[in-house]
Amino acid sequence: MANQEAMKTIAELGYNDVTEVLEMDDEEVAQRIETIATDAVRAIMGGQGINYVMPSRANNNQKYIPELDRIVLLNAVKTRAFDSLSSVRKTAIMTRVFQLIHQVVRKRIHVTKRDLFYTDVKLFTKQEEVGCFIAAQRLYVWPAANLLASRVLPWLRLVPQSDAVLDDVACMVGCTRTSLNVVASDKGVVVGCVTFLEDGDFIDCTRMGVGGKAIPSLVNKITDIKGTAQFVLLVEKEAAFMRLAEDRFYQRYPCVIVTGKGQPDVGTRQFVRAVKDALNVPILGLFDSDPYGLKILSVYMSSSKNMSYDSASLTCPDIKWLGLRPTDLDRYKIPEQCRLPMTAEDIETGRRLLQADFITKNEAWVKELRLMLDTKVKAEIQALSNFGFQYLTEVYLPQKLERGDWI
Amino acid sequence: MANQEAMKTIAELGYNDVTEVLEMDDEEVAQRIETIATDAVRAIMGGQGINYVMPSRANNNQKYIPELDRIVLLNAVKTRAFDSLSSVRKTAIMTRVFQLIHQVVRKRIHVTKRDLFYTDVKLFTKQEEVGCFIAAQRLYVWPAANLLASRVLPWLRLVPQSDAVLDDVACMVGCTRTSLNVVASDKGVVVGCVTFLEDGDFIDCTRMGVGGKAIPSLVNKITDIKGTAQFVLLVEKEAAFMRLAEDRFYQRYPCVIVTGKGQPDVGTRQFVRAVKDALNVPILGLFDSDPYGLKILSVYMSSSKNMSYDSASLTCPDIKWLGLRPTDLDRYKIPEQCRLPMTAEDIETGRRLLQADFITKNEAWVKELRLMLDTKVKAEIQALSNFGFQYLTEVYLPQKLERGDWI
Repeated sequence: MANQEAMKTIAELGYNDVTEVLEMDDEEVAQRIETIATDAVRAIMGGQGINYVMPSRANNNQKYIPELDRIVLLNAVKTRAFDSLSSVRKTAIMTRVFQLIHQVVRKRIHVTKRDLFYTDVKLFTKQEEVGCFIAAQRLYVWPAANLLASRVLPWLRLVPQSDAVLDDVACMVGCTRTSLNVVASDKGVVVGCVTFLEDGDFIDCTRMGVGGKAIPSLVNKITDIKGTAQFVLLVEKEAAFMRLAEDRFYQRYPCVIVTGKGQPDVGTRQFVRAVKDALNVPILGLFDSDPYGLKILSVYMSSSKNMSYDSASLTCPDIKWLGLRPTDLDRYKIPEQCRLPMTAEDIETGRRLLQADFITKNEAWVKELRLMLDTKVKAEIQALSNFGFQYLTEVYLPQKLERGDWI
Repeated sequence: MANQEAMKTIAELGYNDVTEVLEMDDEEVAQRIETIATDAVRAIMGGQGINYVMPSRANNNQKYIPELDRIVLLNAVKTRAFDSLSSVRKTAIMTRVFQLIHQVVRKRIHVTKRDLFYTDVKLFTKQEEVGCFIAAQRLYVWPAANLLASRVLPWLRLVPQSDAVLDDVACMVGCTRTSLNVVASDKGVVVGCVTFLEDGDFIDCTRMGVGGKAIPSLVNKITDIKGTAQFVLLVEKEAAFMRLAEDRFYQRYPCVIVTGKGQPDVGTRQFVRAVKDALNVPILGLFDSDPYGLKILSVYMSSSKNMSYDSASLTCPDIKWLGLRPTDLDRYKIPEQCRLPMTAEDIETGRRLLQADFITKNEAWVKELRLMLDTKVKAEIQALSNFGFQYLTEVYLPQKLERGDWI
């Protein structure tokens, strides 16, 4: 496999205005939170009130780094003051979330946002939103916070977005979002030529039947990744994964087959990155030939904007686009009735993607997307079923791999 | 574990007016379809046209069998005639689906509805719907159908529901829906004290890390289920599953922990049934204390109405309701702020459930549901996080299990 660019660190590239966070273990996160809390208490005792200082995640503090092909944060900071009407709510919520995360990492467990939500359910208007009414008795579990509680209590019927709060907390601690041990539902699966330890259990993905191994949200429990795979085959949707798994495609072409079942969760994205790093193999992407497929591909590649502070552990900038590509439609003679007309929304999304950094940096990708937009036609991976249900594994992929047909 | 009722067959119970289907292997399904096709060709040659006769799946042909606690089909039949304006479309579509299923079982592979859809994509208006334009050249793969094609061709721009068509095909063949090898996306996961072979691979669910083993949609690839589990803990939602898996709950209480992540797919339901049959252990259900939780519980127990012909392989009538039950809210002193008011829709659903067979047959369940409706309060499993993130695994479940507190 050629065309793999050496990955450089941000420092080596000469960017010194960039904020990035680190993977931290439970102990480190706990210590950082204790420091933050002690500083806060000291500030209160000194009559200054709480001021949380953290990297700004605003659009104008985000930057696309072409060499890394991902979005990172610059080094502007924002301050959340408790004695300001505009930020008192968020400051109080962050205090509560610091306390909860401290509990979680001290116990070395993982929880969901929903678990956090249930520490005070009536304050949350919907699942996506976290609000906190800091009940004084809750704060006893975290002694340093008791002092805060008495001052914070009256202010706290608050409902900002939980993801934003967790992102702020991670940025301020200086750790990845995963290091907070707050995980989402996992949904990715894997089969193929890779083994690893998961919480001490030896997992051999060549022997995971046809259903595969569920990729945990708790990716930091995965260690010792090894294997004979020569590439990762990253599949957008589960149906293609199922075909590949049932046909044991990896026995003929040594690879790791992963799907995030559409829009990938954080666990799947981290897993793909971890496998890539451990095995040092390229990633070949099998996605629908439509703007939505490209958007999902870009999430694997460049992360999403609101998690740019954490993009290093989540992204694989050099994913190769194997298929299904717009030029494949004619090359593989996909019949008219298996092509779908793009909707107005598809076309609009496609036009916006033409400006996206992950497209513009690669002339071959630009050409493919232009062809899609010119023909106004899209197609799904499963359109290949038109030639037979196993055409994907027996003809299409073998031809692609033998010709090195990816861009 | 007490209270397990011996399961009787429908014949033993004296019902002779009931239609049920069988698990069939690929060869049997293929042969049945060939017989159906040969009969159809013979009818056409005899000048009678095609008449497909199959069990009716209409509401008035469905019956709840209290002893089995599931819905079955009675023995009324319906006829789909090709020479009738009202049924020509469905008859033609069934012909095409017979042909496709014949290909699939002959190749011994599994496909998704989407794969079927892509044999003629432009004819399907949405994924849930199957339409067929039988292209004559497609029919060459199944010689007996060629004759049909020339007559059927002009009629076939059709869009009925694919699930209904597949259910009709299964009923007419006399096999379970799974025997057709058309599978949905799988989403269930399992950990715990059970081992099995999956497509020949030995799977030990005590060594599946924290993410667990993905349950395949292709459950007929699972054989040799063994294990030391004393019960199946069936969990509605993934967050509770994650807690149980990370805490390795099954090491302290030997059990199999399964979740279908909300509304379960067919694969998960069949897997639970297969584990129950193989290990002969009770199933304890951990669901939200709300009407939606009860509805999901009922899907595991009594199947859904449109699959009543196939309920034997899918249902577990004697699931015990362990929690979270309406009476638990006071017993476990769930604080007010972790209880949620029922919406008007919740209350309406709850009232309808009061009439449902799976509730009325158990006085204790009726009482619980009445309490929910009287108090107009619901609560989720994760409300227990209010007492600590591990309260579920360290206090609630151990107490429930030691007291035998299920109904």
